[in-house]
Amino acid sequence: MSAVPLILVNGIESQSVPATDRGLAYGDGVFRTLLLRDGAPQQWERQYRKLAQDCAVLNLAVPGEALLATELQRLGERAPRLVAKIIVTRGASPRGYRYDPGRPPNRILLASPVPEPETHAVAGVRTRRCKLHLSHQPAFAGIKHLNRLENVLARSEWEDEQISEGILCDVAGWVIGGTMTNLFAVREGELVTPDLGKCGVAGVTRERVLEAARQHGVKCHVVRLAWSELMAADELFLVNSVAGAWPVRQVDERTWPVGPVTRTAQAWLET
Amino acid sequence: MSAVPLILVNGIESQSVPATDRGLAYGDGVFRTLLLRDGAPQQWERQYRKLAQDCAVLNLAVPGEALLATELQRLGERAPRLVAKIIVTRGASPRGYRYDPGRPPNRILLASPVPEPETHAVAGVRTRRCKLHLSHQPAFAGIKHLNRLENVLARSEWEDEQISEGILCDVAGWVIGGTMTNLFAVREGELVTPDLGKCGVAGVTRERVLEAARQHGVKCHVVRLAWSELMAADELFLVNSVAGAWPVRQVDERTWPVGPVTRTAQAWLET
Repeated sequence: MSAVPLILVNGIESQSVPATDRGLAYGDGVFRTLLLRDGAPQQWERQYRKLAQDCAVLNLAVPGEALLATELQRLGERAPRLVAKIIVTRGASPRGYRYDPGRPPNRILLASPVPEPETHAVAGVRTRRCKLHLSHQPAFAGIKHLNRLENVLARSEWEDEQISEGILCDVAGWVIGGTMTNLFAVREGELVTPDLGKCGVAGVTRERVLEAARQHGVKCHVVRLAWSELMAADELFLVNSVAGAWPVRQVDERTWPVGPVTRTAQAWLET
Repeated sequence: MSAVPLILVNGIESQSVPATDRGLAYGDGVFRTLLLRDGAPQQWERQYRKLAQDCAVLNLAVPGEALLATELQRLGERAPRLVAKIIVTRGASPRGYRYDPGRPPNRILLASPVPEPETHAVAGVRTRRCKLHLSHQPAFAGIKHLNRLENVLARSEWEDEQISEGILCDVAGWVIGGTMTNLFAVREGELVTPDLGKCGVAGVTRERVLEAARQHGVKCHVVRLAWSELMAADELFLVNSVAGAWPVRQVDERTWPVGPVTRTAQAWLET
């Protein structure tokens, strides 16, 4: 991959976006992050469905599926494995929160190298509890919108390279997930994952784990999860579309071995 | 003013910003909106102080005061009255919430025509109660950051051109202010304005009204304000740096005449 990242703005190779884009002005847009393998976007059907759902929540026109797939293919030609990011914004506009619903969105596709070492999936990761608490906004909870200051501030709480992720609670004290991952706990062979009705991002890989658990007859509970229950779990793992599933070896002082249900979930995600 | 807006990106006339800017990716930045009169930024000392305070909350380096003032002067040469917007972002970065604290910010200055008719300040405005409730995020409440999806969605609740502003409550039901304005209520000759410790933007004009009230011996209470108290107020007005103070003539079905304390506050802001 060349030093200059490949970026397509509305299908045209470009390093820049309009300074009046509402994505910049207000975070008025959504995004997806996914793997490209030999040019093929992984879990594309799910990724596109979620993109369309998220756009719908913001009353934002979603770019066509075939158009995006073609553009992802162009990104994917650069290297055998890449991370693609799709940003859809409400386009450029004059100053002011009000928008013209008739204006087409802007789509920005960016290719990046695959970052995390594969060893994380094997050996597991160290994590910490974040001090920042996530706010409740049911109007757009669960979607991957561009208002991500909470994630940025949470990620800035530590510098230690040995710590791969931070675990966040909401303002009410319930566990929500990692700064860039969804979280699963294992309790007596059953899965537990936080309810994301008030905050957090409901990722595609979380959805895949929920579905696979159902298919394999493993009970999975979507719950309000207390920190004490997290600490009492038999196993923990974190998921996203780039990392797959990371076993959690440590949260602050509490440690876990990598457990069998985590390995099973990893196997589900490999298919 | 020409059809193409004057935009300065790090001091260089440009219509675009890097596609990898963290302002776009995460709303990782802050902004100010202010009036330029004959090239002079109005309330510049306060505006810059607030910009610096907001940057500090996000651990963001603030551009120098003299540098920004010079660039605003360049914008101001285009027309006798303009609205200037200053955006400061955490600059471009590779993918990921983590940031390099050593990287310089990007500054984007945009000039726009002055929008609202002056008649609003004289005759007052119609407003409505918004359905959306603002979330609580004490970690960056009060600052004018780029995560403004709540404001965008609130503003999208109405199309009626006769309605100039929407009034927002927080998730706990307390009144916070307008989508783009701070709110004052008048009760028995005293001012009341919402506490913004958990959400909302504490604007420069709100600060000016608070200070002027103190100087003129008018009591002003920063409180948790219930909707019923808003409806029971003798007068209401809305403030921001572009509009000055707008008397509120109507919120949904409830109407008010323009009252004497509102006129007094307007006079304070004219000095």
